[in-house]
Amino acid sequence: MAQRNFNDLLAEQFDKNKFLCVGLDPDLEKMPENIRTLNVGESILTFNRAIIDATADVAGSYKPNSAFYEAHGEEGWRALRETILYIQQKAPDVPVILDAKRGDIGNTNNGYVRAAFDDLKADAITVHPYLGGEALTPFLEQKNKGIFVLCRTSNPGAGELQDFFVEDEPLYMHVARTISEKWNENGNCGLVVGATYPEELQKIRTEVLMLPILIPGTGTQGGDLQKSVSYGKDSNGKGFILAIGRAIIYAADVRKSAQEFDRAIRAALVE
Amino acid sequence: MAQRNFNDLLAEQFDKNKFLCVGLDPDLEKMPENIRTLNVGESILTFNRAIIDATADVAGSYKPNSAFYEAHGEEGWRALRETILYIQQKAPDVPVILDAKRGDIGNTNNGYVRAAFDDLKADAITVHPYLGGEALTPFLEQKNKGIFVLCRTSNPGAGELQDFFVEDEPLYMHVARTISEKWNENGNCGLVVGATYPEELQKIRTEVLMLPILIPGTGTQGGDLQKSVSYGKDSNGKGFILAIGRAIIYAADVRKSAQEFDRAIRAALVE
Repeated sequence: MAQRNFNDLLAEQFDKNKFLCVGLDPDLEKMPENIRTLNVGESILTFNRAIIDATADVAGSYKPNSAFYEAHGEEGWRALRETILYIQQKAPDVPVILDAKRGDIGNTNNGYVRAAFDDLKADAITVHPYLGGEALTPFLEQKNKGIFVLCRTSNPGAGELQDFFVEDEPLYMHVARTISEKWNENGNCGLVVGATYPEELQKIRTEVLMLPILIPGTGTQGGDLQKSVSYGKDSNGKGFILAIGRAIIYAADVRKSAQEFDRAIRAALVE
Repeated sequence: MAQRNFNDLLAEQFDKNKFLCVGLDPDLEKMPENIRTLNVGESILTFNRAIIDATADVAGSYKPNSAFYEAHGEEGWRALRETILYIQQKAPDVPVILDAKRGDIGNTNNGYVRAAFDDLKADAITVHPYLGGEALTPFLEQKNKGIFVLCRTSNPGAGELQDFFVEDEPLYMHVARTISEKWNENGNCGLVVGATYPEELQKIRTEVLMLPILIPGTGTQGGDLQKSVSYGKDSNGKGFILAIGRAIIYAADVRKSAQEFDRAIRAALVE
């Protein structure tokens, strides 16, 4: 069996016009009560399997956020690995982006690379830019994996550092350019840009051209879906990944919610 | 029993002139062969216990780096928790800084807070500044914990972003000031500044005055110990934490190596 390649998997999903990324952020307090009666790891896995079953036909990718699993120690970690395994059994062509926002010095990043790709078997990961490309080398040299670097995050206070002006341009634009011009040597970089900052997204897209952009924030965080699609797409009308977690996984009807978001994205694309 | 308070524990260690922080970064390939014959989690724990036994009398803190444990999945995670537990049994007054370099949006950081402080029972954690203070709130509101924010990292390529000039000053100085003036409302912030950048350390100390600075890089990374102490200390001759990992834990004689570093630090203080 050929090794899984993130870019290939992603391109296949884009070809099917699948841009929805389902965020798997299990929160025990928000799960249906009948699931919560089991033990923690089992609860998470049972919940996630139900979400995956209900969304596998529309999801172009899945994005488990590591924090929601680590909160439960090794039980959570095991549930994270088993969740990724379940996705790869149920929907083998759908890539898994591990939202772990890691970033250490080079020698240490080797450990995170092992964790994400050897132990958990994710297809892509999110990372912090602050230590620079030299430190990110262990990630960047994983040619079959996707490396999504935080550029403009979705949170209300994102601008505190990211808006600092460096030579007449905000820091996040320099980060975008650095990713595109320097860190993407292996063609495996992407960016994270929050839907809550549509103007910034538009500017970043003009800078990074064909790089994939992972866009969280159109669900519970209230970012504009239409603008996220219009500003996030590349010149082929592809290249954007719309990550929605809570607004789908805690919906009364998960399947219906995912299908509605999928339809809304496709509708936004032709507008 | 009163709740453990990081600042109190740290002050107690500073009062004893204990500034050495032993980095617990277990690497199976570098461990003695007789340890590696056991299973992974057991190997790590056996190795760490031996290090802790050999250094407990000179260590002012311990700093396990999460990446080295996560590389081994839930077995590694369990070994990390048991390592921290062992430190707190063997040296109950010595704080544990979890070097995890985390940082997500606020809602998600709650998961990392739980992981670090409820599950693993660390006394402090390292975090990324890129998302801003608003996102870091779940960490910053942990009044009994230490929150060490990356300011100037020790890696060779640290300057790629951190040296960007913002209003005539490098980005890392703005980060230092932001931590000191805005994020330290609960008096629980510290900074991470690499020993490999002594001039930057000196500048940062003039900005943050009495905040504790965690200084990695004087061991294998080759940073100057004398300058790290001279420039890292606060006006009381305290406030710096010298983190040394590989140069101690893989030394032929671990106890002797730790004692030598401890002596060198004390000697540097009176020079």
